[in-house]
Amino acid sequence: MHSVGICGSDVHYWQHGRIGDFVVKDPMVLGHEASGTVIKVGAGVTHLKPGDRVAIEPGVPRETDDFCKTGRYNLSPTIFFCATPPDDGNLCRYYKHSASYCYKLPDNITFEEGALIEPLSVGIHACRRAGVTLGSKVFVSGSGPIGLVNVIIAKVMGAAAVIVTDLSASRLQTAKEVGADFTIQVKNETPQELAAKVESLLGCMPEITVECTGVQACIQASIYATRSGGTLVLVGLGPEMVTVPIVNAAVREVDIRGIFRYCNTWPVAISLLASKQINIKPLVTHRFPLEKALEAFEITKRGEGVKVMLKCDPTDQNP
Amino acid sequence: MHSVGICGSDVHYWQHGRIGDFVVKDPMVLGHEASGTVIKVGAGVTHLKPGDRVAIEPGVPRETDDFCKTGRYNLSPTIFFCATPPDDGNLCRYYKHSASYCYKLPDNITFEEGALIEPLSVGIHACRRAGVTLGSKVFVSGSGPIGLVNVIIAKVMGAAAVIVTDLSASRLQTAKEVGADFTIQVKNETPQELAAKVESLLGCMPEITVECTGVQACIQASIYATRSGGTLVLVGLGPEMVTVPIVNAAVREVDIRGIFRYCNTWPVAISLLASKQINIKPLVTHRFPLEKALEAFEITKRGEGVKVMLKCDPTDQNP
Amino acid sequence: MHSVGICGSDVHYWQHGRIGDFVVKDPMVLGHEASGTVIKVGAGVTHLKPGDRVAIEPGVPRETDDFCKTGRYNLSPTIFFCATPPDDGNLCRYYKHSASYCYKLPDNITFEEGALIEPLSVGIHACRRAGVTLGSKVFVSGSGPIGLVNVIIAKVMGAAAVIVTDLSASRLQTAKEVGADFTIQVKNETPQELAAKVESLLGCMPEITVECTGVQACIQASIYATRSGGTLVLVGLGPEMVTVPIVNAAVREVDIRGIFRYCNTWPVAISLLASKQINIKPLVTHRFPLEKALEAFEITKRGEGVKVMLKCDPTDQNP
Amino acid sequence: MHSVGICGSDVHYWQHGRIGDFVVKDPMVLGHEASGTVIKVGAGVTHLKPGDRVAIEPGVPRETDDFCKTGRYNLSPTIFFCATPPDDGNLCRYYKHSASYCYKLPDNITFEEGALIEPLSVGIHACRRAGVTLGSKVFVSGSGPIGLVNVIIAKVMGAAAVIVTDLSASRLQTAKEVGADFTIQVKNETPQELAAKVESLLGCMPEITVECTGVQACIQASIYATRSGGTLVLVGLGPEMVTVPIVNAAVREVDIRGIFRYCNTWPVAISLLASKQINIKPLVTHRFPLEKALEAFEITKRGEGVKVMLKCDPTDQNP
Repeated sequence: MHSVGICGSDVHYWQHGRIGDFVVKDPMVLGHEASGTVIKVGAGVTHLKPGDRVAIEPGVPRETDDFCKTGRYNLSPTIFFCATPPDDGNLCRYYKHSASYCYKLPDNITFEEGALIEPLSVGIHACRRAGVTLGSKVFVSGSGPIGLVNVIIAKVMGAAAVIVTDLSASRLQTAKEVGADFTIQVKNETPQELAAKVESLLGCMPEITVECTGVQACIQASIYATRSGGTLVLVGLGPEMVTVPIVNAAVREVDIRGIFRYCNTWPVAISLLASKQINIKPLVTHRFPLEKALEAFEITKRGEGVKVMLKCDPTDQNP
Repeated sequence: MHSVGICGSDVHYWQHGRIGDFVVKDPMVLGHEASGTVIKVGAGVTHLKPGDRVAIEPGVPRETDDFCKTGRYNLSPTIFFCATPPDDGNLCRYYKHSASYCYKLPDNITFEEGALIEPLSVGIHACRRAGVTLGSKVFVSGSGPIGLVNVIIAKVMGAAAVIVTDLSASRLQTAKEVGADFTIQVKNETPQELAAKVESLLGCMPEITVECTGVQACIQASIYATRSGGTLVLVGLGPEMVTVPIVNAAVREVDIRGIFRYCNTWPVAISLLASKQINIKPLVTHRFPLEKALEAFEITKRGEGVKVMLKCDPTDQNP
Repeated sequence: MHSVGICGSDVHYWQHGRIGDFVVKDPMVLGHEASGTVIKVGAGVTHLKPGDRVAIEPGVPRETDDFCKTGRYNLSPTIFFCATPPDDGNLCRYYKHSASYCYKLPDNITFEEGALIEPLSVGIHACRRAGVTLGSKVFVSGSGPIGLVNVIIAKVMGAAAVIVTDLSASRLQTAKEVGADFTIQVKNETPQELAAKVESLLGCMPEITVECTGVQACIQASIYATRSGGTLVLVGLGPEMVTVPIVNAAVREVDIRGIFRYCNTWPVAISLLASKQINIKPLVTHRFPLEKALEAFEITKRGEGVKVMLKCDPTDQNP
Repeated sequence: MHSVGICGSDVHYWQHGRIGDFVVKDPMVLGHEASGTVIKVGAGVTHLKPGDRVAIEPGVPRETDDFCKTGRYNLSPTIFFCATPPDDGNLCRYYKHSASYCYKLPDNITFEEGALIEPLSVGIHACRRAGVTLGSKVFVSGSGPIGLVNVIIAKVMGAAAVIVTDLSASRLQTAKEVGADFTIQVKNETPQELAAKVESLLGCMPEITVECTGVQACIQASIYATRSGGTLVLVGLGPEMVTVPIVNAAVREVDIRGIFRYCNTWPVAISLLASKQINIKPLVTHRFPLEKALEAFEITKRGEGVKVMLKCDPTDQNP
């Protein structure tokens, strides 16, 4: 392994030992945003050889069920997923993974970019499910790391305007830097008032909203804000039960769609990075050698910076 | 006009003077499930002539806006709609309507079938938005008139199995008669329990659920019941704010989609009826001459029968 | 193995030793329309056990490449396919196959129905790619076995009218028996004339055409016949180079789509057969024990009947 | 009227008096790439007022038929289209057009950009029908004005790499300037050889090909070049009958789709131009006052430059 990013879920398992129904019962290796170098391949592997630099897709279905056969393997109940208990992750020096889910990196993509394909994939999957396309007006609710990747991906998919909301002015500043056209710092507006502000600043209602906070009031605002016939994608997860203006969405044919991780995103992300359409390198704000993992996790826990990267190869700590 | 069916919304306006934001402020003609005979056409009309028997689509956009241009004219805010205040309906003897939204009936379709295209259209639009197709397993929540048309349409679109729930045993009996494969009489199950019963009886989770009651517990059960990657269509409307297990839907990628009336359904419905793929004549359980409209409304208000038809042509009271 | 149908391609390999680039260089077992009983499963198999009756999907990708991951595994260049050289088929007594591509048959589906899922799958894949849905008007060019399964599937997907053409009156009679609404016996019409006859008899231009002959004049007629904005699916294969009115198709936005075998059809076909929506048993017109395979192939070669079935289990020769 | 671009079809009608079945029988005003200023509106118009600067979509359906209702109004046989006989165009000083097909230009879009929305729309419609999206590899066959707009639009829709072929080195240079990643100057390769060169230079087969020449050999190369499961869009029109390797396309499920003009492109194009995602101003290489129209047509006929613009407003000859 070369570079492994720390995700909020890693911190959550570390601190709380569970996320929803997934409970850590035995010691578990963390890490699922990873890249490294192939040192050995199985007999049947034809697309990789030792020495190849690869990005790792952490979810691998164990059986070829109907979800896999129809192209939605992320929904397979048989899936193995790095650092979701009881499956070990890859924040370590050596790690074995299904070759079909290791993707060769061209020379002009760094290991860290390779590791960042994981969070980027959440944005790709969300924007695909949202149907972002040429000329889309997109509202991204929340400007954390996941909100940011959605801004980046929406823009490169042809969105004409992206508006982002958040409580934090500094996070909104980062959103601007990665391409947001408009930002709104949320104060104590009602959901309807926030929706009205989005429409006013954007000049029209967005046909697509990507909700990245999971907060009830934000989900409500996202429904009110979305144009009739549009789509709201729920990326952020909050409490199990949420009160929403479901009639408002239904009679305006605003589709509400969730995402579960991602599928079929690594090849596209590699194409994007190789062609230099997007630049995600600035997302990495901190780097630590693997030996200082604890320090890195503390930084992440405190919410400093955007992405903290752990360097697992003692002989190469470069990006 | 020849035959006009009475809809629940007609009764609601009659009794309460409003539905949500639509308020009856001036006298208004009711009726929007209608068929009749052309007596006169405008100069530019080429597809109709006096004497043609026609079914009437009640919604007509007043402007050719983006919703119209992209094929979703039902969402146009400019739409005229029969018997939605302040627009008059067509429960009367003579009525003027946009020729583009009058559809010629072939000889083998009766006037009443023509009038029934309106409620049938709700089923067509819902099943289309649900993506019902060959081999679909479909759960229809609620066995009133709208639930029934969804059963009929889902079956003719190739659904392999349709399961229907309702409180009323007699309504479920009607569902069986129009094609439901399984029925469950709902008692005091929790939403999760009801979802488990649906899966158990169907032999698998349905990939499509059509919710026709608008009741919060039914919407919750519909989410729990739908297979990962599937679609829930909300047809029934209840209270504005509803508490739902949104995370359950989101992380299983169950799409939640509403419908607003329908679009592009009349030509398809006429094809279906002309080819005798479906038989909706038994849905008409009562007939009254226009003079006895009050009596007809009282019957509908009491929930007797399925569909009450008013006969507006004193010279022809046939179906 | 219990029942294995004989396909035209089996006869072709037997007689000519090749189809296009696929050349028989070594002895090869024929057969790919098959069903049988599980006698042993691998350690990791959870969905099957010895004694289960199964239908066999003959194509199994050897690698999980991008085609597989996106749900189009039939296009994977790594695919194993029964009785396509150099891969052996399953016209024999015992055969080993990937468990993921063996589908358990419920008790109310016979072995022969299970074997017929293979040709039925061609119809399912073609009608899906064509977008057949509620109210579709469909033109099926050619009334051989593949034409017939397309008629059957189009009707159960909700097609309002299906029109079939063929040179043979008896084949057209069979088309009528399986559900065709209209038939035209082709004589010496030009492609344009044939297209005009289709429109005249159907009462409109079909929005979908399924071409099952591969003959140049039929492909031309199929283009002329299809409604603007519609879809032509090419199922029949003829000469490599074909002269077609491509401008006519292009400027009317008639999409031309091919099919390569099928994918994701077995579960749907099992649902269809289990629910008795379709009856394909009459397609089997001849049965022979495995020992009389040569006789069975001779019959098929002469084009007698519709489907010839070989019975591989000496202890059970039932359907 | 302010600015009207000259299209190849304008020149064709001027020189030959016909294109296919469209024959000029009476004097006809040319011009359909246009923008101007509203001087008067009808009583029912609410979205425009005198003084508004507008871009004009030249195709307006005369009846609201099924094509219009389903969002494909460009296919309506009732369509009025500027400068397609017998309908007059708008290369003149004053012109009346349906307000629903006049789109208000924001201040930061020039009249000439407004006029260029027409050719841009061909690229938008083609790339939409092709399904260009994030990470697409796109092959554009032909580097004339239509090839160029397809390069521009494909890139802004997220294409990771665009490769362009042409006979002319200078045209390929222009393709590079508007965003092409690779170019191939076509010499005397066979179609298969050209397809192999595309794959070799691109590093993979393109999943999308946009054919803009209409030349038989180019259409053949486009089929061979496109990846299995991909899409070929035919934009260029050549002879009515073309010989193509249809089996090659069919068994690899390469869809062949045409386009007829465009629909629903003006609002998107305005969003694109207003947000400065694309810069099409350099496409205008010549300008003439309306009085010098003949000279402008001569220039266009000789194929000089990319786009020749006629300036109809004697008081404002600015871009």
